[in-house]
Amino acid sequence: MQQELFTINNLWMMVATILVFIMHLGFAALEAGLTRSKNTINILFKNTIIPGLGILTYGLIGFNLMYPGEIFQGAFIGLSGFGINLPANWDNAAYNAGYTFYTDFVFQAMFAATAATIVSGAVAERIKLSSFMFFSLMYVGICYPIVGMWKWGGGFLDTLETPFYDFAGSTIVHSVGGWGALVGAILLGPRIGKYTPHGIRPIPGHNIPMAVIGVFLLWFGWFGFNGGSVLSANPGEVSKVFVTTAMAGAAGSIGALCAAYSFTRTFDITMVLNGILAGLVGITAGADVMGPLDAVIIGSIAGALAVGGVIFFDRLKIDDPVGAISVHLICGIWGTLAVGIFGSLAGWPQIVSQLTGIAVTGLFCSTFSFILFFGMKKARGIRVHAREEIEGLDVNEHSMQAYPDFASKE
Amino acid sequence: MQQELFTINNLWMMVATILVFIMHLGFAALEAGLTRSKNTINILFKNTIIPGLGILTYGLIGFNLMYPGEIFQGAFIGLSGFGINLPANWDNAAYNAGYTFYTDFVFQAMFAATAATIVSGAVAERIKLSSFMFFSLMYVGICYPIVGMWKWGGGFLDTLETPFYDFAGSTIVHSVGGWGALVGAILLGPRIGKYTPHGIRPIPGHNIPMAVIGVFLLWFGWFGFNGGSVLSANPGEVSKVFVTTAMAGAAGSIGALCAAYSFTRTFDITMVLNGILAGLVGITAGADVMGPLDAVIIGSIAGALAVGGVIFFDRLKIDDPVGAISVHLICGIWGTLAVGIFGSLAGWPQIVSQLTGIAVTGLFCSTFSFILFFGMKKARGIRVHAREEIEGLDVNEHSMQAYPDFASKE
Amino acid sequence: MQQELFTINNLWMMVATILVFIMHLGFAALEAGLTRSKNTINILFKNTIIPGLGILTYGLIGFNLMYPGEIFQGAFIGLSGFGINLPANWDNAAYNAGYTFYTDFVFQAMFAATAATIVSGAVAERIKLSSFMFFSLMYVGICYPIVGMWKWGGGFLDTLETPFYDFAGSTIVHSVGGWGALVGAILLGPRIGKYTPHGIRPIPGHNIPMAVIGVFLLWFGWFGFNGGSVLSANPGEVSKVFVTTAMAGAAGSIGALCAAYSFTRTFDITMVLNGILAGLVGITAGADVMGPLDAVIIGSIAGALAVGGVIFFDRLKIDDPVGAISVHLICGIWGTLAVGIFGSLAGWPQIVSQLTGIAVTGLFCSTFSFILFFGMKKARGIRVHAREEIEGLDVNEHSMQAYPDFASKE
Repeated sequence: MQQELFTINNLWMMVATILVFIMHLGFAALEAGLTRSKNTINILFKNTIIPGLGILTYGLIGFNLMYPGEIFQGAFIGLSGFGINLPANWDNAAYNAGYTFYTDFVFQAMFAATAATIVSGAVAERIKLSSFMFFSLMYVGICYPIVGMWKWGGGFLDTLETPFYDFAGSTIVHSVGGWGALVGAILLGPRIGKYTPHGIRPIPGHNIPMAVIGVFLLWFGWFGFNGGSVLSANPGEVSKVFVTTAMAGAAGSIGALCAAYSFTRTFDITMVLNGILAGLVGITAGADVMGPLDAVIIGSIAGALAVGGVIFFDRLKIDDPVGAISVHLICGIWGTLAVGIFGSLAGWPQIVSQLTGIAVTGLFCSTFSFILFFGMKKARGIRVHAREEIEGLDVNEHSMQAYPDFASKE
Repeated sequence: MQQELFTINNLWMMVATILVFIMHLGFAALEAGLTRSKNTINILFKNTIIPGLGILTYGLIGFNLMYPGEIFQGAFIGLSGFGINLPANWDNAAYNAGYTFYTDFVFQAMFAATAATIVSGAVAERIKLSSFMFFSLMYVGICYPIVGMWKWGGGFLDTLETPFYDFAGSTIVHSVGGWGALVGAILLGPRIGKYTPHGIRPIPGHNIPMAVIGVFLLWFGWFGFNGGSVLSANPGEVSKVFVTTAMAGAAGSIGALCAAYSFTRTFDITMVLNGILAGLVGITAGADVMGPLDAVIIGSIAGALAVGGVIFFDRLKIDDPVGAISVHLICGIWGTLAVGIFGSLAGWPQIVSQLTGIAVTGLFCSTFSFILFFGMKKARGIRVHAREEIEGLDVNEHSMQAYPDFASKE
Repeated sequence: MQQELFTINNLWMMVATILVFIMHLGFAALEAGLTRSKNTINILFKNTIIPGLGILTYGLIGFNLMYPGEIFQGAFIGLSGFGINLPANWDNAAYNAGYTFYTDFVFQAMFAATAATIVSGAVAERIKLSSFMFFSLMYVGICYPIVGMWKWGGGFLDTLETPFYDFAGSTIVHSVGGWGALVGAILLGPRIGKYTPHGIRPIPGHNIPMAVIGVFLLWFGWFGFNGGSVLSANPGEVSKVFVTTAMAGAAGSIGALCAAYSFTRTFDITMVLNGILAGLVGITAGADVMGPLDAVIIGSIAGALAVGGVIFFDRLKIDDPVGAISVHLICGIWGTLAVGIFGSLAGWPQIVSQLTGIAVTGLFCSTFSFILFFGMKKARGIRVHAREEIEGLDVNEHSMQAYPDFASKE
């Protein structure tokens, strides 16, 4: 009997793993679609190399930092070795009721690379490839697993009197990415021509169908991201998470539609797309403790917040080509807070814990990102030359074009 | 023991749910690919907002209309409340041997939005966005669940002496969409320039690779659409449905290839793509009662019918930019009829029941659609201005372009 | 108890089936993306028709050749009939502990069409459509299942003293496709303008985002390709295969990146994409007998080999537009050999068996392909006219364009 449930649970976790995997294609398509065709190869290159870098780095060190104990376990950091060390009973229910050691590793590895992918969108069209790759390596290998350990690896956020709650990672994954995105975007500065004396110049994405493909694949994968975070195939729990994930994404699209229409009087598809993601980020922290109505409220507020965020950061002249900071940081914070406001954990003690987690994560990740980006900036520069930026990164960093057969507009 | 099978069944239903979900991306990509680049944002916008609208509307009212009983149950209409009302035992096998209440809801919600998506293709490139959105809301929220209730909610089609049979919805999903598509296309009239005094002018789709992505994703999702309609993970039943679904899609592609080649002497990829969908629509009503050979026959006839349908509707000057009426209505009817001709239910009584279901659904859906479209047409118009249509809906309704970096041909 | 595990195993095999199915979209997107826009319809047409042709042919004859016995069973060839013949107990564990007969068939059918798809890329942009379709029919219907039978159908490679080992088909699927690709590319000759007196002229792919979509979908599907080859949902085995598949793909991307950078000093995304596939092909033969570190080594060598292969075949003036020969043949051989070098089967006897399997498969497939291609070449030609090739196959064979709205560069 044990064996049957173990096999089912493990099966769901493996399916969830590949759903999270395909989110990397979602990010690649979204980010490429929302930027200019002269930088498409560059963006796709980053998003193509990140899963590879992420999986290898996470295998080498990240997994050991995130789930420590073998070597030492502290409240803020720990370690269980280097490389992938198969424990005893790794492949049966004596190891874990829900999945094998390998399933655990590969599921977590797919999650890990997400944090770097989020950053990629915000720093697009102007960052040096080598700087981004070094940052990603450090962020996936060290920053993300340390923060993850605080909650999921038994660290101090999990041992608060009222434990910080983050079901699938509104803070631990999305905000972590979002802080890196914010610091990167600030230190890089805006793209040439974005903020002019005459106002903000919109720089439209070059391939909206790609962006649509990206968002649908992200929503598709999110059922594995949230659903897999149940860590078993428990029918009631996973199906509840499916409902909240579906409802929040749906509500996010409508929330963003309404917010965008009331600001601009147009039906802006990029806002709807970001609204879906915002709803999904928003529900991620509490997907298992919310009812359908909570999910609709959280999602629609998240959708509106994403629209407001895009406008807000543009006012601050923080240039985020794809809206990643609004979606992942703002809505990641909102979703984390919402656990204290809606659903079965709501209450002041939970709100305090949520704020604690948000603040500590923000402090750590922004410092970590600042040190990396600022250090690289001083040492060798993190931004391509103006000429390269104007001509496009594809020709200059890759000697290739994404669409060599087609004539461009000018 | 109960618990293991319940968990497995529920797991398959959840996987099927996300497979049906990704069909919305399939429709988006197919419809965008087969229309012109000046209307791409508009089409993608509709297909992006439909899942959101559909899920929310279905949660609010549709699900309660489709599976009535709590408040009242008639032969033609019933209701079980408003919103999502968790019944007792919703998360265990005492509620249902195959899945939890939430799984049921989210699976059905993904199905529901499909009907509106089918309409979207046929009315593309000329309908007002607001008219389409209002129609979708009504169609998904009211028309679709009422028809669905007739069979799947214990209504009069299910209680005929020889019950009407529609396994996964050749009639109840695809024809429902198809009737809305037909009525919409007639009331809107053809696109400007399509039917000229000198004959029919082909208006080619602007991005065939997108259309290919769309069809493959639809086929991929159809394994969940049909396979999930088993409502359990029963190995024999689901694997049989997989085989008939694979065979009918395959035969549809070859049937359409042969039909198209014999008419035009060219290898027309759009016909092959529609042929795959035609085969899939055709097998949907009887996917569980057919053998592999039946599936091949039904699929290849469906593929040929789709090609014939496209030519037929063009002769009637009913302009359907993506061939949705041929694929979903004609082949939906064919597939439903085929249940009386092939497979384990074949026989005159079944044919009569199938014809009854087809006729009643056609009458209801075309009337419902006519009232909606005609009412809106009289009240405020359903078609964009000629100038907007010629310039493109993207610039006029959305102030955006799908591919701003690329030069267009003329 | 039996029934629960049977249902779980069968469920995983069905999910794996649709994962392998979506690989056909992966190949379509990759091959279309890496070739020129004037031949896009042609390539998509081939890749769209192949799954249909493949499934039907495999049902008619291929499956019966690959798993013989009912009629006769030899060491090199056998047969179990024609069409799909349901055996007794086909739908329960008495037939097979892992899956039903139908699941077996549909999973194998999805595999079968892969071999022809691999060829499609190497012969792209110059082969006659009819020649390719006839070749595919023969290759999927006869060549592939005969080779498959040698190992998976109990043939002579499986009864060697040290049995040849090929877990999921580095040789039996990928090399089979690769040999057809090699012979086809040689007999067709290079594309006009590829090899000039002044050196090799690069012919860049027209849509790199499509190629990225293709590779990610292939990796996604590969978890079903390799994971499904466990033939059950055994948690330890499938999760191990997931880890090796993830690691090898990751390592392939980094291996190719390093190799390509050291040759060209640019960050060539097409090399990284092929490197991912190379790593995946490389691990396929031994995905269940390798540890994570073995997978990293095998994958990174495969990634480098793919880059070297592309350069090598270009030197030989064998024109392979998408690099299929390097990825599927070279890395298929490498992966097969690696089973004798790394992992739990390593040793001289295994190396000898692996070399035997590689050699016999190469001899048979290249002869089979040569007879087909050479016979067609003599009888009616296999290559389009130079004028058609220069103008593009889309206009000439299909009277269509993939992107009719966009202006091309010249």
